[in-house]
Amino acid sequence: MSESRKRVVIAAVDPEIDHGQWPVKRVVGERVVVTCDLFADGHDVVGGEVLHRAMGARAWERVPLAALGNDRYGAEFRVEAQGGHEYTLRGWVDAFGTWRRDLEKRLAAGQEVDVELRIGADLVEAAAGRAAKADRAALRAAAGRLRGDEPAADRAAFAVSAGLLALVAAWPDLPHATTWPRVLRVTVDRERAGFSAWYEVFPRSTSPEKGRPGTFQDLLARLPCIADLGFDVVYLPPIHPIGRTHRKGRNNARAGQPGDVGSPWAIGAAEGGHDAVHPDLGTLADFRMVVARAEALGMEVALDLAFQCSPDHPWAKEHPEWFRRRPDGTIRYAENPPKKYEDIFPFDFESEDHEALWVALRGVVDFWVAQGVRIFRVDNPHTKSFRFWEWLIAGVKKEHPDVLFLSEAFTRPKVMYHLAKIGFTWSYTYFTWREGRQEFTDYLTELATTEVAEFFRPNFWPNTPDILPKHLVEGGRPMFLARLVLAATLSPNYGIYGPAFELLERVPREPGSEEYLDSEKYEVKWWDLDREGHLREEIAAINRIRRSHPAFREHRSLRFHATSNDKLLCYSRASEDGKDRVLVVVSLEPRYVHSGWTALDMAALGLPWGASFVVRDLLGGGSWEWKGSRNYVELDPARMPAHVFVLEPAKP
Amino acid sequence: MSESRKRVVIAAVDPEIDHGQWPVKRVVGERVVVTCDLFADGHDVVGGEVLHRAMGARAWERVPLAALGNDRYGAEFRVEAQGGHEYTLRGWVDAFGTWRRDLEKRLAAGQEVDVELRIGADLVEAAAGRAAKADRAALRAAAGRLRGDEPAADRAAFAVSAGLLALVAAWPDLPHATTWPRVLRVTVDRERAGFSAWYEVFPRSTSPEKGRPGTFQDLLARLPCIADLGFDVVYLPPIHPIGRTHRKGRNNARAGQPGDVGSPWAIGAAEGGHDAVHPDLGTLADFRMVVARAEALGMEVALDLAFQCSPDHPWAKEHPEWFRRRPDGTIRYAENPPKKYEDIFPFDFESEDHEALWVALRGVVDFWVAQGVRIFRVDNPHTKSFRFWEWLIAGVKKEHPDVLFLSEAFTRPKVMYHLAKIGFTWSYTYFTWREGRQEFTDYLTELATTEVAEFFRPNFWPNTPDILPKHLVEGGRPMFLARLVLAATLSPNYGIYGPAFELLERVPREPGSEEYLDSEKYEVKWWDLDREGHLREEIAAINRIRRSHPAFREHRSLRFHATSNDKLLCYSRASEDGKDRVLVVVSLEPRYVHSGWTALDMAALGLPWGASFVVRDLLGGGSWEWKGSRNYVELDPARMPAHVFVLEPAKP
Repeated sequence: MSESRKRVVIAAVDPEIDHGQWPVKRVVGERVVVTCDLFADGHDVVGGEVLHRAMGARAWERVPLAALGNDRYGAEFRVEAQGGHEYTLRGWVDAFGTWRRDLEKRLAAGQEVDVELRIGADLVEAAAGRAAKADRAALRAAAGRLRGDEPAADRAAFAVSAGLLALVAAWPDLPHATTWPRVLRVTVDRERAGFSAWYEVFPRSTSPEKGRPGTFQDLLARLPCIADLGFDVVYLPPIHPIGRTHRKGRNNARAGQPGDVGSPWAIGAAEGGHDAVHPDLGTLADFRMVVARAEALGMEVALDLAFQCSPDHPWAKEHPEWFRRRPDGTIRYAENPPKKYEDIFPFDFESEDHEALWVALRGVVDFWVAQGVRIFRVDNPHTKSFRFWEWLIAGVKKEHPDVLFLSEAFTRPKVMYHLAKIGFTWSYTYFTWREGRQEFTDYLTELATTEVAEFFRPNFWPNTPDILPKHLVEGGRPMFLARLVLAATLSPNYGIYGPAFELLERVPREPGSEEYLDSEKYEVKWWDLDREGHLREEIAAINRIRRSHPAFREHRSLRFHATSNDKLLCYSRASEDGKDRVLVVVSLEPRYVHSGWTALDMAALGLPWGASFVVRDLLGGGSWEWKGSRNYVELDPARMPAHVFVLEPAKP
Repeated sequence: MSESRKRVVIAAVDPEIDHGQWPVKRVVGERVVVTCDLFADGHDVVGGEVLHRAMGARAWERVPLAALGNDRYGAEFRVEAQGGHEYTLRGWVDAFGTWRRDLEKRLAAGQEVDVELRIGADLVEAAAGRAAKADRAALRAAAGRLRGDEPAADRAAFAVSAGLLALVAAWPDLPHATTWPRVLRVTVDRERAGFSAWYEVFPRSTSPEKGRPGTFQDLLARLPCIADLGFDVVYLPPIHPIGRTHRKGRNNARAGQPGDVGSPWAIGAAEGGHDAVHPDLGTLADFRMVVARAEALGMEVALDLAFQCSPDHPWAKEHPEWFRRRPDGTIRYAENPPKKYEDIFPFDFESEDHEALWVALRGVVDFWVAQGVRIFRVDNPHTKSFRFWEWLIAGVKKEHPDVLFLSEAFTRPKVMYHLAKIGFTWSYTYFTWREGRQEFTDYLTELATTEVAEFFRPNFWPNTPDILPKHLVEGGRPMFLARLVLAATLSPNYGIYGPAFELLERVPREPGSEEYLDSEKYEVKWWDLDREGHLREEIAAINRIRRSHPAFREHRSLRFHATSNDKLLCYSRASEDGKDRVLVVVSLEPRYVHSGWTALDMAALGLPWGASFVVRDLLGGGSWEWKGSRNYVELDPARMPAHVFVLEPAKP
């Protein structure tokens, strides 16, 4: 019966990912709203608080829980420092609050309260016994006054005063409080983790001269153009030496021809492994110049982390024990039976010597961090050990909390989410293949409004070097524009496989294939950046709009609105303070003109039913006076297949 | 990195109530279906099992987890013994299964598999190392055969044989298995906990002679009538001596008159307290005769457990420290300011001497258990300590797992559910006030198809001595019938406040009040059981139907079906084996004839789309050939405001 006086029940704490096994994610300055069920037996008033602190701090900060109805309570706090933060809760029966509530009812009914005031005095006295010295005297004096000689009406007025309530409430009966048994964690990242625009570019294809492969110096010269487009992150596929054994040819031909440059993901050759730079690109010093110039332009470089080796990787000779081997001791190449990938040796994360392997891979990250890299895009993380990633990311972030990881896990949903739980900052998603209105609504509702939003940050890509979706092949320029607007406004983090997207590249290797014809993965490309139809202006515009409206940073604020035409997807976002509100309407079938009527959820827009307001199109220009939920929209793909509206007050 | 080879992730285990803090509930013979997410990094095959055992048993029984799609797995087991049962899960990477799957693909592609067979032999050898002696030799022999001299095709055929798979699968790689960190519990009750029909009767109102108060002997004589109605549980309001101080008069008059008998809930007088019998009712020996006769008739007696005292209760003098007191030491009566209940002293469960109080209250339960009582209906449990109930129920059930408790917690939903979690067998519900189709659908969907169904057993009451709902007052006999059918078929456990319901008693104390006029709570009643319009036949019929169709016992099988008329509520239930299927249609507004068309969820009925079938009305008689989802129904309240159909195959 030792716990018999802990009468308060705390339950259904939110957020709490898998029993608190995993942290939630926030960026510096963001709120954490904590809610829970809180109740006790009987009819007593209950109180409670959220306790929180930066990881490593000694003292807890306390935020009182406020009632939300139906025994649900909530409190919020902000995370101010990059790194870790933690929180828990406690609750108690508030004997003074109960007594005060009942006293007010007795007074309202005109009852005699003299005995009640004596009971209250005992409760205040008990609070004095719990209080720190500064409050103790005041509480004792208050108890004395309740018992004192003043007329009962005056003492009663003092008893229910806000001042006395505040004084007593500061000293709850903690020995009988119920404390949540788990301390929950928050991973606090820098701002870019919450809002970023990515541009993927192959350094070897950045040469301005046709016929000469690009180098880091060419990339350096290209950076201002990328910055002008409004991107924050320049993501480079692997920059390491490329294997020669079983090197793939153009269009992934099994047998390469002399002169073929190979896939950058077949990492490692005589020139070095994961910590070396491909000699054709330049030197490590050149690479560091790229990093520095990007930074000067307000961008940063993301490197590819592809933990696999070509047969020529130095480790294949030095550490054969780090790979899966056949009974005869030779290293097994990658397979997805019956398919064989003879140019790739996967690591064996369960190798008897796996501790040394893990440390070596950690060394790769540390090496590039030392070169100034703070973002890694991780190739196929779901094919490597979860435990390894958990260990790696925790270790790196402990020393460098500003290092961020993008998971390229195009895999099953639960595996994708698990990678987010174990530490990945962002993840690629199924956005690339979502096409219909119901699909978008279901998927985004899951991503932005359920528990998933607490730990999984989507990064939306309309294309990648591996994925040329059918709708881009068939839909052409208007579809590129629609997908750009969708990616950039449905998710605070998004990216494009740069030149290919910007220049409307859309010829598949064969009909129905998602592979690009003459894919840059297997050859050096020269891109004519002025190719007809290029999207430079539109991309720059959408990135400018994203940056100037805080609403686009608020992932969890996403709400969908119905329209009368199911080819028109309509959604809104709002800044945390509600001052910035955007409404996007995109044509999902931008071959024809589509028109229809909105059925806006006015409450979700922070507007009264029937209110008048102005929608100003930040992308296509123009502004309209709208009234209430039902308004006409028409999207002409020849002009622009989307409206990106900011909501403004109606003109008087 | 010590856990680095535990590659399988187990998550989202269901059922698991509040992180496993509370058990789920079952009756003897019922299934527990356990599901979880189960996956690993990479593309390896995973395996897993549910482990379960009766509480106290040493060995775990193992049930393999089967894939349900989308990385969800499930297994089920049955609980066979009353008391406690427990379960947990583990999962592992299945190296042999992975190898076997890949081998099948290689064989299908016509690849050379000699090296593969040697790898497989190593895996079988490893299984031999883990196996018990009986299997070890067989596994070693199998490994030898895979490496042996037979043609590769024959060895390959053996490698993928079902026999070898079963042999190896019995010995998973447990040192690298992931075990769920919690052992979860099941409370296993006797069958009546899952299926019961209650009849509430005041012993003092069972006299066959008008003017003479009833006794246990009168109740004894009445029992066969109640058994004929088809009830299992005869629930008696408190049978103890009633206090005289501040005794309430008829219709809850504050000042009683001489001759007033008082409320049975004002427990305790000079004649004794919670372990005494009111002398007007008879003796403890008489009471034991009632218990024995009920048992002989296939019923049992439920007693009221109202843990509060009248001012005349012996404990008020012997143990003033068990009550809340004023500063002057006098005991405080019950209050809900500004209302006062001067005839009741509540216990102080936080008293300094609360351990002795708890033990004394436990003594009350033990006393009645010793008299043969096995069911208690607990009065207002939410106004007493949760911790107390948790301690009391666990203690009683440890010695007497057949003792069951009904919670009379007409309170907020989270408190109501919490009482179920801490041990109450059943609970009263909001059924009594639900009226509209959407209300029923929402509430029952929550009760029968969500996690709530795992721990909360609803007990549906159309009326109680405290609640005469407005719809009964206004709706008369057809409404009584509709509410009877709803209670009896929407919930496997239900009850009626007997004579008042059976005899259509429906005059409120004043218009709009839910109190009965001349309530039995404050006076002795004489009931004319042959009063015109009585529901004896209908009640007996519905109880007979419930007993003869196992579908009515399956709480979790409840499914709703749409109808074209929102006054027609339509739902179905099925037995676990699907052989017994019932479909109920109730008119929620039985003043007029209502008709409409069903839109049956054919899949939920286990029928193919468009199938023909027969519905036979077990209650009103008649049978119809129906076809497909859309069928006409018409309910005439003058006849019967409900159909209770059993589904039968169409005649050939």
